[in-house]
Amino acid sequence: MIVDGKDVRPIWLHEDQVTVQVIDQRRLPHEFVVFDITTVDDCIYAIQHMVVRGAPLIGVTAAYGAYLAALSAQRQGDPEPFFNGECQRIKASRPTAVNLAWAVDRVSRRVESVSDPEQRARQVRIEAVRIAEEEAENCRRIGENGLKLIEAIREKKGEEPVNLLTHCNAGWLACIEDGTATAPMYSAFEKGIDIHVWVDETRPLNQGSRLTAWELGKRGIAHTVITDNAGGHLMQHGMVDLVIVGTDRTTRTGDVANKIGTYLKALAAYDNGVPFYVALPSSTFDWGLTDGVTQIPIEERDPEEVRIVEGIDQSRSRKVLVPPQDSPAANFAFDVTPARLVTGFITERGICRATADDILHLFPERAAPIRE
Amino acid sequence: MIVDGKDVRPIWLHEDQVTVQVIDQRRLPHEFVVFDITTVDDCIYAIQHMVVRGAPLIGVTAAYGAYLAALSAQRQGDPEPFFNGECQRIKASRPTAVNLAWAVDRVSRRVESVSDPEQRARQVRIEAVRIAEEEAENCRRIGENGLKLIEAIREKKGEEPVNLLTHCNAGWLACIEDGTATAPMYSAFEKGIDIHVWVDETRPLNQGSRLTAWELGKRGIAHTVITDNAGGHLMQHGMVDLVIVGTDRTTRTGDVANKIGTYLKALAAYDNGVPFYVALPSSTFDWGLTDGVTQIPIEERDPEEVRIVEGIDQSRSRKVLVPPQDSPAANFAFDVTPARLVTGFITERGICRATADDILHLFPERAAPIRE
Repeated sequence: MIVDGKDVRPIWLHEDQVTVQVIDQRRLPHEFVVFDITTVDDCIYAIQHMVVRGAPLIGVTAAYGAYLAALSAQRQGDPEPFFNGECQRIKASRPTAVNLAWAVDRVSRRVESVSDPEQRARQVRIEAVRIAEEEAENCRRIGENGLKLIEAIREKKGEEPVNLLTHCNAGWLACIEDGTATAPMYSAFEKGIDIHVWVDETRPLNQGSRLTAWELGKRGIAHTVITDNAGGHLMQHGMVDLVIVGTDRTTRTGDVANKIGTYLKALAAYDNGVPFYVALPSSTFDWGLTDGVTQIPIEERDPEEVRIVEGIDQSRSRKVLVPPQDSPAANFAFDVTPARLVTGFITERGICRATADDILHLFPERAAPIRE
Repeated sequence: MIVDGKDVRPIWLHEDQVTVQVIDQRRLPHEFVVFDITTVDDCIYAIQHMVVRGAPLIGVTAAYGAYLAALSAQRQGDPEPFFNGECQRIKASRPTAVNLAWAVDRVSRRVESVSDPEQRARQVRIEAVRIAEEEAENCRRIGENGLKLIEAIREKKGEEPVNLLTHCNAGWLACIEDGTATAPMYSAFEKGIDIHVWVDETRPLNQGSRLTAWELGKRGIAHTVITDNAGGHLMQHGMVDLVIVGTDRTTRTGDVANKIGTYLKALAAYDNGVPFYVALPSSTFDWGLTDGVTQIPIEERDPEEVRIVEGIDQSRSRKVLVPPQDSPAANFAFDVTPARLVTGFITERGICRATADDILHLFPERAAPIRE
């Protein structure tokens, strides 16, 4: 993505080939800081503390983490068990986004029969880079495919701007390029379609107001930050033409785990006849699951993320406590939107309805429900 | 309400009889500050800037404001037109809560035929006090009536705590005593029923995490602050037995205007078969309206309330900006929950379903749909 004239991705391998660098997403939008990952522990820290976040980016970071594990194994001379153990540690760093396990499994499989430690590290690196490039390409295609939905609305509405709503950040910061939910928005903007995006602030960590608003602003796309409470009212009054969100894990039957609060927006969209689309690369499908509400593990994070809000005060970063000092909080990070509320999926292969049959029609190679 | 051993209300007339004093609700929970209202301008400021908020309390504050207007008219010697003009100004201070107009109209009517300025002021004061006492009594009865719902759940659940969820603050801070939505909770707690309350933080102004959590904590009631995004997930997983919210204006057909985001909780409750009740004194019915979504005016407030969050940092009150400096925000303060999503109303006269017929059955004197 071009930001302030520079081509930027949220993750890249430093030219020293042993440092993975990421944008520290905890510091945006008020500071642009690069965070260095040189060990598996750094990688796990970055994923757990949400230096990086977003299902596709978590996957790519994990793949690079596996590369660091392979480098470390190579240095230690006890390569295979150590490497596999480190991969398991990376996989366990967060529970909900399936891309994490998917990416680690993919690089591990690639080197299953490689016994030379140097070769292993080299091949893990190649595979990690390949995953990153594939996800970038997937997002580009999601943009192309989702564009058709926006063009259709545009045609119906005439000159008025097309109003989109999104929750959390499923932008290029969450992916590699273009984003998932934002990819159709960027495509539409590039085609000169007049769009406006309602950005859910997305409590507790405000990925919407911090990250999505920043991304859209940097690209020059008209947007308005709203509280997570506001979407229903907007939809009741015809102020939303299309909802597009991302997902952290999607069952083969079309149930969608995404940032907490997504389910509420899906209910409101359904109640008001507003199309509700989920954009995802196929790496976010969990082909082994058939019931999202009972089968997808929902991460519970530190309640302090709810109680304490971070922002700036006179250009200085500060954290403030909102509720009474002794009031406890709970912090469920995701919820599951049942397939019945989802109008459709925007994938790299095209758009489909949120049913097992339609998903399978796009991904026929997944006919056997075997966990990858 | 007893707070730290003292009997406190959110509003009272100072013994000087010319100063209305209120708890400055902008400063809670971290500071307890009393705000003086001595002029109509102070009264309007207090309502507009949410020094006081909550439909019943706005009504009582407005009635006391009319008293200050009558005092001022008495001093000025041009009493009636001035008094009526000031009442109109008070009525226009916020658009959504109907108690505001209701209370001002009630005190105005009371002195319609009173020409002596001193008498007028005296009678307006008496009527304002009467409204305050009536609202306190209404809330007490709402508590008694709503208690039955909690007792019924308690009976079904056995020893497990009854889990309630509420949005915003419809507690004693929003009323005079007991609150509306919280009144059944206080009644249940006093009867020794084991309850636990999920408190929606209620962005943007965090009346849930700041005020409801403070109230419940002061009373010793178990509660957990959650983001506004979380309720749907909790309901999907059987963690909410009953939702009770307040309202700012309710049509004779049962549509409910309440704090933005209420509609989303009602959708989730409906989708999961969780009972969704609205607690209100009859002063919050707008008997002239039949369609909430099209007829109830929804206040739009300063977008900075969305962009800037207030809390404390090392015991000092601070405000922090969350989104990018140049990202705009929108701030719709209320939404409308259609009657079809409301299980029932808890009023001072009893509980009824959210239909025109059932409401009228409780309030037969309102059979003619004439605007009061």
